Amino acid sequence: MNLSKIKEKISNFKVEVPSWGFGRSGTRFHAFHIPGEARNIYEKIDDAAFVNKITDAVSAVAIHIPWDKVEDYKALKDYAEEKGTKIGAVNPNYFQDEDYLFGSLSNSDKKIRRKAIEQTFECIEIMRQTDSKILSMWIPDGSNYPGQIDFKRSFDLLEDSLKQITKELDEDMTMLLEYKFFEPAFYSTLLCDWGTSYMLSKELGDKVKVLIDLGHHPQGTNIEYIVSILSYKGKLGGFHFNSRKYADDDLTVGSIDPYELFLIFVELNKYFDLSSENQDISLVLDQSHNVKPKIPAVVQSLNNLQITYAKSLLVDYDQLKQAQEKHDVIVAEEILKDAYEKDVRDILREVRKEKGLPENPVKFVRKSDEYWEVVKRRG
Amino acid sequence: MNLSKIKEKISNFKVEVPSWGFGRSGTRFHAFHIPGEARNIYEKIDDAAFVNKITDAVSAVAIHIPWDKVEDYKALKDYAEEKGTKIGAVNPNYFQDEDYLFGSLSNSDKKIRRKAIEQTFECIEIMRQTDSKILSMWIPDGSNYPGQIDFKRSFDLLEDSLKQITKELDEDMTMLLEYKFFEPAFYSTLLCDWGTSYMLSKELGDKVKVLIDLGHHPQGTNIEYIVSILSYKGKLGGFHFNSRKYADDDLTVGSIDPYELFLIFVELNKYFDLSSENQDISLVLDQSHNVKPKIPAVVQSLNNLQITYAKSLLVDYDQLKQAQEKHDVIVAEEILKDAYEKDVRDILREVRKEKGLPENPVKFVRKSDEYWEVVKRRG
Amino acid sequence: MNLSKIKEKISNFKVEVPSWGFGRSGTRFHAFHIPGEARNIYEKIDDAAFVNKITDAVSAVAIHIPWDKVEDYKALKDYAEEKGTKIGAVNPNYFQDEDYLFGSLSNSDKKIRRKAIEQTFECIEIMRQTDSKILSMWIPDGSNYPGQIDFKRSFDLLEDSLKQITKELDEDMTMLLEYKFFEPAFYSTLLCDWGTSYMLSKELGDKVKVLIDLGHHPQGTNIEYIVSILSYKGKLGGFHFNSRKYADDDLTVGSIDPYELFLIFVELNKYFDLSSENQDISLVLDQSHNVKPKIPAVVQSLNNLQITYAKSLLVDYDQLKQAQEKHDVIVAEEILKDAYEKDVRDILREVRKEKGLPENPVKFVRKSDEYWEVVKRRG
Amino acid sequence: MNLSKIKEKISNFKVEVPSWGFGRSGTRFHAFHIPGEARNIYEKIDDAAFVNKITDAVSAVAIHIPWDKVEDYKALKDYAEEKGTKIGAVNPNYFQDEDYLFGSLSNSDKKIRRKAIEQTFECIEIMRQTDSKILSMWIPDGSNYPGQIDFKRSFDLLEDSLKQITKELDEDMTMLLEYKFFEPAFYSTLLCDWGTSYMLSKELGDKVKVLIDLGHHPQGTNIEYIVSILSYKGKLGGFHFNSRKYADDDLTVGSIDPYELFLIFVELNKYFDLSSENQDISLVLDQSHNVKPKIPAVVQSLNNLQITYAKSLLVDYDQLKQAQEKHDVIVAEEILKDAYEKDVRDILREVRKEKGLPENPVKFVRKSDEYWEVVKRRG
Repeated sequence: MNLSKIKEKISNFKVEVPSWGFGRSGTRFHAFHIPGEARNIYEKIDDAAFVNKITDAVSAVAIHIPWDKVEDYKALKDYAEEKGTKIGAVNPNYFQDEDYLFGSLSNSDKKIRRKAIEQTFECIEIMRQTDSKILSMWIPDGSNYPGQIDFKRSFDLLEDSLKQITKELDEDMTMLLEYKFFEPAFYSTLLCDWGTSYMLSKELGDKVKVLIDLGHHPQGTNIEYIVSILSYKGKLGGFHFNSRKYADDDLTVGSIDPYELFLIFVELNKYFDLSSENQDISLVLDQSHNVKPKIPAVVQSLNNLQITYAKSLLVDYDQLKQAQEKHDVIVAEEILKDAYEKDVRDILREVRKEKGLPENPVKFVRKSDEYWEVVKRRG
Repeated sequence: MNLSKIKEKISNFKVEVPSWGFGRSGTRFHAFHIPGEARNIYEKIDDAAFVNKITDAVSAVAIHIPWDKVEDYKALKDYAEEKGTKIGAVNPNYFQDEDYLFGSLSNSDKKIRRKAIEQTFECIEIMRQTDSKILSMWIPDGSNYPGQIDFKRSFDLLEDSLKQITKELDEDMTMLLEYKFFEPAFYSTLLCDWGTSYMLSKELGDKVKVLIDLGHHPQGTNIEYIVSILSYKGKLGGFHFNSRKYADDDLTVGSIDPYELFLIFVELNKYFDLSSENQDISLVLDQSHNVKPKIPAVVQSLNNLQITYAKSLLVDYDQLKQAQEKHDVIVAEEILKDAYEKDVRDILREVRKEKGLPENPVKFVRKSDEYWEVVKRRG
Repeated sequence: MNLSKIKEKISNFKVEVPSWGFGRSGTRFHAFHIPGEARNIYEKIDDAAFVNKITDAVSAVAIHIPWDKVEDYKALKDYAEEKGTKIGAVNPNYFQDEDYLFGSLSNSDKKIRRKAIEQTFECIEIMRQTDSKILSMWIPDGSNYPGQIDFKRSFDLLEDSLKQITKELDEDMTMLLEYKFFEPAFYSTLLCDWGTSYMLSKELGDKVKVLIDLGHHPQGTNIEYIVSILSYKGKLGGFHFNSRKYADDDLTVGSIDPYELFLIFVELNKYFDLSSENQDISLVLDQSHNVKPKIPAVVQSLNNLQITYAKSLLVDYDQLKQAQEKHDVIVAEEILKDAYEKDVRDILREVRKEKGLPENPVKFVRKSDEYWEVVKRRG
Repeated sequence: MNLSKIKEKISNFKVEVPSWGFGRSGTRFHAFHIPGEARNIYEKIDDAAFVNKITDAVSAVAIHIPWDKVEDYKALKDYAEEKGTKIGAVNPNYFQDEDYLFGSLSNSDKKIRRKAIEQTFECIEIMRQTDSKILSMWIPDGSNYPGQIDFKRSFDLLEDSLKQITKELDEDMTMLLEYKFFEPAFYSTLLCDWGTSYMLSKELGDKVKVLIDLGHHPQGTNIEYIVSILSYKGKLGGFHFNSRKYADDDLTVGSIDPYELFLIFVELNKYFDLSSENQDISLVLDQSHNVKPKIPAVVQSLNNLQITYAKSLLVDYDQLKQAQEKHDVIVAEEILKDAYEKDVRDILREVRKEKGLPENPVKFVRKSDEYWEVVKRRG
């Protein structure tokens, strides 16, 4: 790929930012206050818009229901558009209502299951009003102790609930099924790995795909392989970008193992044009910036993704294929390393300059008066 | 279930023993000599038959090709039957031929792929001659370094090879697809988790099912949940029993986490009658007794499985269901614990006494003249 | 050991219960309300006393400061004693004060470090007033990102703070240094393994020992080995009992891997008489009963510990030693299994009967009017 | 640091290569033949010398006893020196002698223990004759099953054996104690973590230090933290460089997580001048190039280390310290990232050019006639 093509792609590469990435977050031990935190969905949209103004890399704002509930969703949509952004994936929350102590969409109590389904219908209605096309489902249902649930029954109930929800989706809507190895359930989780999400997505049809969150795997998992297999079978629907060293740590994407992130992008490029607006994959940040100021952390995250994407575009796929056919392990590896070792920050700087953006957005935001006014205003 | 029914089930519960469990085994560092090791397939059948004489718990002898290659398989079959046992699952070996350095059934070199397919056809022919019904496939193909293989292409080639093999299977034959997290490939493995095996088993049709080896999962994996979901969807075809604390350690089944083994049996009982000869699931030991004398280690393994199976039969499934419906976590858990805490060894002793077997086979074998003669003879 | 000696030991075996085990707990996603939760330290003492009335197995109530702060600690001590129990280990909390965002005892800000030290001095004063002898320190200090802290400087500051605290301890007080693999810090943790706690305990002298929490290790860790080595070197000071399948899940002790718990007790018996009041080791429950009613969960935990302790007392240590000297792996293993497989619940029932206690405390509590009145009263 | 200083350091940075890195290696399943493998210690020295000719980055050849046993060690030393290199760390092998089935230096059989000690004395004598200063001890002793060994007794015997060996060391010799999480022992390992090696190194005195092998930790371990703490306490003695994704995979250093490797070098620079000949730390490759040609794999490894070392030298430690003091997490992290993202290959090319070396040694070796002649000669 020539440099101008690469620059064009980087220029068009955009990612959704999560509304919750601008608010307070923490661990079960404490959620510390960080100056500048957004306190409601409007402030979160403000922050996303601000980040976009600096980076031109924000495709939309993913929202969480009920965290981001408002009276008037059309007004919310308008607000986002006024600010130069839009509403992205809608994420129903199945983990905070007291009724969900023993499960939501898989609860053996019919009334609670109904409630969870209705709540999802509400989210679909919100999607209609905000023109969102992605229903992003993370279902935390599972159990904490052997014997607590009957696996088959719970799985069956979940499948049934999802069938009802799938039917409710409009033609152009997609449901993404996220999976997670553990937490908040500590013994079993119904959607604990890509296999469970894939199994259900097959049963539920073409509107349902799998979402990969980078922090939701057992240690050692080869995520780029999962990316490849799911994409190959047409079932990869989206990404939650973050990093982890231990469990679902929700750290800044690219902060712990940037080479793994690069290898994931190397696979993604084989199946998707990530720079296209019409790409058939949802790319969303999903992080908890527990010890970092929120807006700068999102800017840093986007920068990390841009660096990684740029490097992945430098891979010589033709030569790679040749080396693979010859089983030339070292040469194949060095082709990847050659792209990875390049310092692409000059390319990024050029792209930004051409767009009239700050050349180093991470530095810029920390010195921006606009940013500090936000921090000051929010106290 | 009443006691006599339980005793009947325990009495009829049988497991395949692996020919390779009687021979030398080791780590990459060394394979130590242990007195009494069998040196060829005939001695391995002798050992299996001896174990069966003591335990009446051996359903068949699983064999490895080419390790257990002979001139005349009909003769081998006859030999096994004379000794009171038979040939069980046939396991093609895709990891020791020098040609397989860069893969077998997924090798991008057509000739090598062909060789691997032909070798499998040979195994199917051996199945015909030995009246074996299970083709047990562990495919170690994968890669050691990023870039070494193209995931999609390799997966595709594997799928194609397996399609050819599946066509060759007789009506009453089943192919089991084992998966393994890693080793001998240290970066990617084509069949690395149940999801990959399940995906292929769906594409390949009803003759193909998934095999679970207890040592082939990431740490923390809830194996009993995989058992349940695969069984529910009709795709669990078999088990390799062993234990591990770290990776694929191949220790004696039940030696590290016996409660997990119990929970697995609790699930199996929901879908299979493990005591039936016509059960639709293959149960096989797969262990490397690196520091234990081989025959006693197999006897100990069968004893551990009998203890665990007996406990699992004591579970009050009706009460369990009731507690689950009421979300009574402690009661549900205690129902499992109540069965698990019971000392079932008296039941086992009675069952054995009624069958004229040694009541404590683990002790018996160590004092058996027949055993020590074997050890002496083999030097 | 003969049966009456065993029964005597079981009868005298007692464990501290944590005040926080009776109150609300949860994950970072939500802390669900469970009926019957204690709402303050007095109710927690009530609950501990109630559990003790049913089990006679509670040695004291461990408290958390500032969670359990009161005006008058002498009064608190008197209250506990009136109720038939006492105050156990005092646990300073270094993770909830907004000042501790970037560390407590290792904070590079001198004022915050001072505050953390002073707060610990306050805990020592509380120990004096409540006649507690154990200062139980879990220091969550660490970092979330590479570069965030300088490891050496932070370790150095922590060591310096601990030196000042150690000097403040009375002659008969012990400081326990807990370690934890990760969380709430997600990149580095100063006391992340037994090695770091051991290193500091050596530098700090005889008053300082290591505390093992069963949920604070990397997957696969052989905890019983750590128990043995630390005990051998005189540096094992205490235990936090719980279970985990994944990370620091804080599940009921014995609920996930009861055999591992047994193996830990088998080691403890070699160094400590756990039934002695003057034992030199602190045994404390540390659990979050997120989905279980609190009082019954504590009763269940104590029952699990009693079962495990009873089994460990049945091990024939002399025969074990002989088998080990002969390298007789199977026999050695079977000696442990022989004790483990025994159903010791009859022994427990007898011990309880002799003490006039309910023979099945787990069942008893669920049917106890006193318990349901507590639940009702608290709403 | 200015560029010329950096180039000087890179120029002087050297690492030991392992004799076993040039010979055949494999997994427990098979050791595949790779063309060009060295077949004896002389060929291995030839290969090391050849690698050094291309890279000028080889400090010495580490040897394994008895693998590299010869009649005349003075002659071996002379041979190495003639070839422009020398003998490095001597590694006694405690895992292949049939006597060591149940342990070597910790074996409860006095005769076997004695044998292991004497064998180590022999290694010390080899050190004297080859002018080696490092006795590099990896002791695989442990157990495969609960009950197999008594932890305390085994640890005690190991400590006693090591005391005898330490006394035998000359004044200028250092013993390094390697640790490993598991394998070949699959239940317990005496030196299973840095804590056990550290504990013994403290008991054994100043001549004994800890060696870190990058593949010998539980998943998620923060190795750079261990590096820092051990260095701070004067107990880090050496490194075995390699990579892993799962267990002790022995892959090419830098091939799986190059950022982690960078962070390790960032710590090392704080305590050591890795470019100095008199550095007090032993740096050794320890890899099994199962699927790569051996000589090119070693060249690639050295190149990866040079890249990483160069990047680590670009870190602005002063600014880092300032950011840390201000708890400016993002800035601190970006300082590391700024160095890491730089493409240092131009610097390496210049350094090599100035030394008259091939500018791209990885490419060079694959096209070198000398290399292909070696391959051809060895068949």
